[in-house]
Amino acid sequence: MTTEYRRLRVALLGAGAVGSQVAALLLRHGDELADRAGATLELAGIAVRNLDAPRETDLPKELFTTDAESLILGSDIVIELIGGIEPARTSILQAIGSGADVVTANKALLATHGPELFEAADRVGASVYYEAAAAGAIPIIRPLRDSLAGDRVVRIMGIVNGTTNYILDRMETEGADFADVLSDAQRLGYAEADPTADIEGYDAAQKAAILASLAFHTAVPLDAVYREGITTITASMIDEARAAGFVIKLLAVCERIEANGTESISVRVYPALVPKSHPLASVHGANNAVFVEAEAAGSLMFYGAGAGGVQTASAVLGDVVSAARRHIAGGVGVGESTRANLPVVPIGHVTTRYQITLEVADAPGVLATVAGILSDGAVSVATVVQTVEGEDEPTARLVIGTHRATDATLSATVDALADSSVVERVVSVLRVEGE
Amino acid sequence: MTTEYRRLRVALLGAGAVGSQVAALLLRHGDELADRAGATLELAGIAVRNLDAPRETDLPKELFTTDAESLILGSDIVIELIGGIEPARTSILQAIGSGADVVTANKALLATHGPELFEAADRVGASVYYEAAAAGAIPIIRPLRDSLAGDRVVRIMGIVNGTTNYILDRMETEGADFADVLSDAQRLGYAEADPTADIEGYDAAQKAAILASLAFHTAVPLDAVYREGITTITASMIDEARAAGFVIKLLAVCERIEANGTESISVRVYPALVPKSHPLASVHGANNAVFVEAEAAGSLMFYGAGAGGVQTASAVLGDVVSAARRHIAGGVGVGESTRANLPVVPIGHVTTRYQITLEVADAPGVLATVAGILSDGAVSVATVVQTVEGEDEPTARLVIGTHRATDATLSATVDALADSSVVERVVSVLRVEGE
Repeated sequence: MTTEYRRLRVALLGAGAVGSQVAALLLRHGDELADRAGATLELAGIAVRNLDAPRETDLPKELFTTDAESLILGSDIVIELIGGIEPARTSILQAIGSGADVVTANKALLATHGPELFEAADRVGASVYYEAAAAGAIPIIRPLRDSLAGDRVVRIMGIVNGTTNYILDRMETEGADFADVLSDAQRLGYAEADPTADIEGYDAAQKAAILASLAFHTAVPLDAVYREGITTITASMIDEARAAGFVIKLLAVCERIEANGTESISVRVYPALVPKSHPLASVHGANNAVFVEAEAAGSLMFYGAGAGGVQTASAVLGDVVSAARRHIAGGVGVGESTRANLPVVPIGHVTTRYQITLEVADAPGVLATVAGILSDGAVSVATVVQTVEGEDEPTARLVIGTHRATDATLSATVDALADSSVVERVVSVLRVEGE
Repeated sequence: MTTEYRRLRVALLGAGAVGSQVAALLLRHGDELADRAGATLELAGIAVRNLDAPRETDLPKELFTTDAESLILGSDIVIELIGGIEPARTSILQAIGSGADVVTANKALLATHGPELFEAADRVGASVYYEAAAAGAIPIIRPLRDSLAGDRVVRIMGIVNGTTNYILDRMETEGADFADVLSDAQRLGYAEADPTADIEGYDAAQKAAILASLAFHTAVPLDAVYREGITTITASMIDEARAAGFVIKLLAVCERIEANGTESISVRVYPALVPKSHPLASVHGANNAVFVEAEAAGSLMFYGAGAGGVQTASAVLGDVVSAARRHIAGGVGVGESTRANLPVVPIGHVTTRYQITLEVADAPGVLATVAGILSDGAVSVATVVQTVEGEDEPTARLVIGTHRATDATLSATVDALADSSVVERVVSVLRVEGE
């Protein structure tokens, strides 16, 4: 017995690693998806730039076209997997303008032009789905938007970039240096030829903007996200972290804070010290995880593959089925709510602990001088570990764990330490998260 | 500026640990919830059996009533937090009959009368939401139903009962015995005065039925769920597991399998050996986690508090907001799909590895006899560890890890071992999951 369903035309833009898997799964599981969606999902065509480019999966030649616009205008659901800003933005606006629902995995576009797209969709009653844009295959959009709709998110800490987690994890387990692991990661396909977007934290910052917008009902512009990458992390920093009971993870932190008596949020990406006992410390390899703290629900964690063609295709197809159900049954899509519109504070207002490693002369009075600078800066010291290295001209290494203070205060104090004649070198400064 | 929203009347049935928190949060965060739902959620009343019973939170007296039926019939959304089968079932059917949407955390009712409730809701276009019924505060219903709608779930392994995980975790970390930890857990409020539902696996079996129904689009009756509890687990079993690289966890396993050439599912609850490196092995205390393997998405894990009044209230309120949005904007609710309707196979057809611990006489030929029995039963041996205990009348302890075989085969072979004259005692038989 075959149920007769209404037929929905699905346009696919882009046939790269994710797109080709989406097309293959749509064709292979058509009947099963139809039963779940309550509609037959007809892959109307696949728009690409070059018809002759090699593809990862064996897709029917006749589906391919270079005429994206005609394909879009005849479709009910448009899947945008081109990436980047243009022509993705124009194509999505064309799709919305024609009344189609849009499914996209384009974090760069959402983080920079999200409000424009969501407003355009709102005006015509269309919907933009983007589960694959925030943490690959990990379902995080619906939990944040729906499951936690009756709760208040306090903080999100996410490992949202697989490449950097892979690099840091290998540095941790092998004691290897950043540059060596990076080139090996490039050879193995875990890092791209130009790894800047990953290792400098740009990719994580885009995802942080998307997650914070959703969790705090606030349009978070990408340039309000503070960002540091992992290129300065060394094997010895990881050793020192381990000795102190931490691992180093590149975290996207989205936090509700009070600044100058006003409810605000902070969105930031940086390598941080995470206690070994924290669930995020056990996220290995290229996996991603999003740790959410909510007022009522307490701590939740969502874990899975953060990237990969077929894994991301799963998230895209989940959105396609949701879009199809909405086409058939009506109702609200995932949309975007910016009703809270909280101010995003600059990094200087954020409160954390620091762990500061210094090389200082091994001479009398040095510790007193360092302690004096910290005290002058109103930075309170929680722990100090001093070790002496070298034999002829001995150098002491000071690892100072501070109490919580604003980033502005801590940063100014680190500057004062660097300027002091007793400090030979500021070896590292890392923030502590998840305590 | 205050937006004028349509007013929806919300009835609350039950004011226990979860119910009183739901009421308190509804009253405290009313404006915020209204913005998210697009409707003002008016708590119309709280139906209880006894108006004078002590409550955990300070709720306005005038909200309480013993007349559940009148309250239900005047409401748009009915939250059922009474628990148990009756009068919960009758109240939910009344609510559905009057056109209200229902939110429930009642796993016992859903696992036994789920199809009746979902069919009644379907007939009138109402919806039954139940995020809090499967794993407390952990968002798992929407990820399974929506985010993975374009994928195929292969296996779910869940730690879905906080009490048993708390007990096993303390046995593991303290080397303590089951009975001691249980009575301490009762004293601390982690286990109930009558702990049967938790420690015998009945609670986990109800949740397994709910998760399997959702993941495999199949109505899974509770009596099709194979169930064993943790009362037979001893400190020495945990020691032996640790030595072999495992921890013991009470798992709810929902699996897609092929039986007699037919696509089928297996749903089962038992204490199992889980490799220490598996993410589920790191779930400590009363926490829950649901590990999902899907064809395209790969491995995902959802982690958080499995119980607790305010934590569960978060999941309930998420459902209330979803129900309210549906009242305003239309569309499909969470519903239930049974279109696949796969057969549920009995435990005998399930394939796993066993770890069998035997006490045998320390005499020549014993190992050969045991190996012969295994071989006669067509059970292939993967590992054997023999240790000798006692001095006067030495007893050997044999820990045998088998290769994968059906439960029927393994079980019959264990029976044959128990009947053998060389076997003094079958100390333990545990299945291995998550390898």
